[in-house]
Amino acid sequence: MTKITMIGAGNLALHLSHALRHAGHEIVQVYSRTERSASFLANQLNCPFTTEIDKITPSDLAIIAVNDDAIEEVEKHIDFPKVHTSGTKGLECLTNSNTGVFYPLQTFSKESEVNFKTIPICIESNDEALRPLLHQLGTSISEKVYTLNSHQRRQLHIAAVIACNFSNLMYRFSQEICEEHEIPFEILHPLILETANKIQSLQPSKAQTGPAQRGDDLTLQKHLSLLENNSELQTIYKTLSDSIKKHS
Amino acid sequence: MTKITMIGAGNLALHLSHALRHAGHEIVQVYSRTERSASFLANQLNCPFTTEIDKITPSDLAIIAVNDDAIEEVEKHIDFPKVHTSGTKGLECLTNSNTGVFYPLQTFSKESEVNFKTIPICIESNDEALRPLLHQLGTSISEKVYTLNSHQRRQLHIAAVIACNFSNLMYRFSQEICEEHEIPFEILHPLILETANKIQSLQPSKAQTGPAQRGDDLTLQKHLSLLENNSELQTIYKTLSDSIKKHS
Repeated sequence: MTKITMIGAGNLALHLSHALRHAGHEIVQVYSRTERSASFLANQLNCPFTTEIDKITPSDLAIIAVNDDAIEEVEKHIDFPKVHTSGTKGLECLTNSNTGVFYPLQTFSKESEVNFKTIPICIESNDEALRPLLHQLGTSISEKVYTLNSHQRRQLHIAAVIACNFSNLMYRFSQEICEEHEIPFEILHPLILETANKIQSLQPSKAQTGPAQRGDDLTLQKHLSLLENNSELQTIYKTLSDSIKKHS
Repeated sequence: MTKITMIGAGNLALHLSHALRHAGHEIVQVYSRTERSASFLANQLNCPFTTEIDKITPSDLAIIAVNDDAIEEVEKHIDFPKVHTSGTKGLECLTNSNTGVFYPLQTFSKESEVNFKTIPICIESNDEALRPLLHQLGTSISEKVYTLNSHQRRQLHIAAVIACNFSNLMYRFSQEICEEHEIPFEILHPLILETANKIQSLQPSKAQTGPAQRGDDLTLQKHLSLLENNSELQTIYKTLSDSIKKHS
C-alpha cells in the first residue's frame, strides 16, 4: 500500500485517484488551486484537501496531475518523491532527485467510466528506489506498464494525437456529410469500430483498403468532384488519398 | 426462401453467399470469369458454377458482386431481377425494370470472419415488387437495413472512405512513429479502440480532444518541430490541426 498525495483535481486526477484507491492505496490529501474541485474530489475519496500550496502533506509519492504548463510552478513546492503525468513534458522538468513520470495513455472525460486495467501506463525514473515503486503502482491498477524514456514518450504523444485526435476529426467530417444528406450517421458506426478493431491484430499498413489503396482513380475523381462545395475537405481528401497511394 | 444467382466470387460474394445460405436462402449458381474463383466458391456452397456469361441460371434474384467497372458489362446478360452491391454506382447503371441495389457497408477481407448481423445494408429499388424482397433479404442476414437513394449512397461512400480508410492511414502514421522510436505500437491499441468506441454514443464533434482542440499552440509547435524530418507528415499534422482549431 502506497500513501499518495494527489496534486490536481481534474479528469485525470479524478479517475486515477479512484483506480489507486480501488487497488488498496491511500490518497492522503488532494491539492488544487480551486477549492471547488479540490473539495469535490476529496469528498469522493473521503480525505482532506488543501488549496494552499505550502500545506501539501508529504507522503510516499506526490502524483502531479495538473496542466502541463502548471507542472513546474507546482513541483517546486514538493520536496518528497514525485511524478508528473504528462505525455509531452520530459523527466527533467522536475527538480531534485526522487522524480519520475507516470503517464496513463488515454483520454479521460468526467462523464464516462474508465477501466484502468486496459489503460497502458508509461513510467520513467532516474531514481533506483522510485523505479520499482512506480512499476508496482502501475501494475496494481493496469495490466500494461511500459518503461519509456522522455524522448519516446514525446514521440508516443505525437503518435497518439495522430491516431486518435485526427481519426476523430475524420469521424467528424463523415458525420457532417451524413447530416448534410440526411443519412443516419449510425450507419457508419460498425465500420468505424471494425476499422479500429482490425488493427488490434493486423498491422495498419496491411489493413489499408479503399479507392486510393486500390488505385481506383475514377472513384477518387468522382469523390473530389462531389466535394466541390467544401474546399477544405476536398483538399484534405486529396492530400490523404495521395499519401495512401504513395505508400500502397 | 429466395433463390439467388451469385454474380462474382470475390470477397463480398464469398461472405454474402455464406450469410445468405446461413439464413436459409439458396444460391442456385455462382458466375465468375475466372474458373478458379468460381469453382472455389461453388464448392464451398455445394452449388453449380459457370464462367460463361450466357449460361447464367435465372432465379428470383441475381446479386451482382463484381468490381464497379465490370457491372455494366455483366448486367446486360441478366434479364431477371437483379441488384448490384456498389456504394458508388447509381441504380441507373442497371437496365430494364426489376433492378435494385443491395449494398452492405463494411470492408471484407478473405482472412477475417464477418458477422453480417451487425453490418448495415443499404437498399434501393424503383420496383414495387423488388423493394419488399430486398428488405426481407436484408433483414434475414442483418439487424440494420436502410433505404437510401443513389445520391445518398454515393455520399455515404465518401463518408466511409473518410471515416475508415483515412483513419487507418492515421494508424499507419502513428505505427511508423512508434517503429522509428522503438515504442511498441500496441501501447496505442486501447486508445484507438476507445476513440472509435466513444463515437458510438457521443457525437464526434463532442468527442474531440487533444492539443489542437484545447488551443495548446505550444504543444502543436513542439510536435511540428519534432516532425521536421518527415515533411509529408508535418504538412498533414498542420493541416488537420488547423482544421480542428477552426471547428473547435
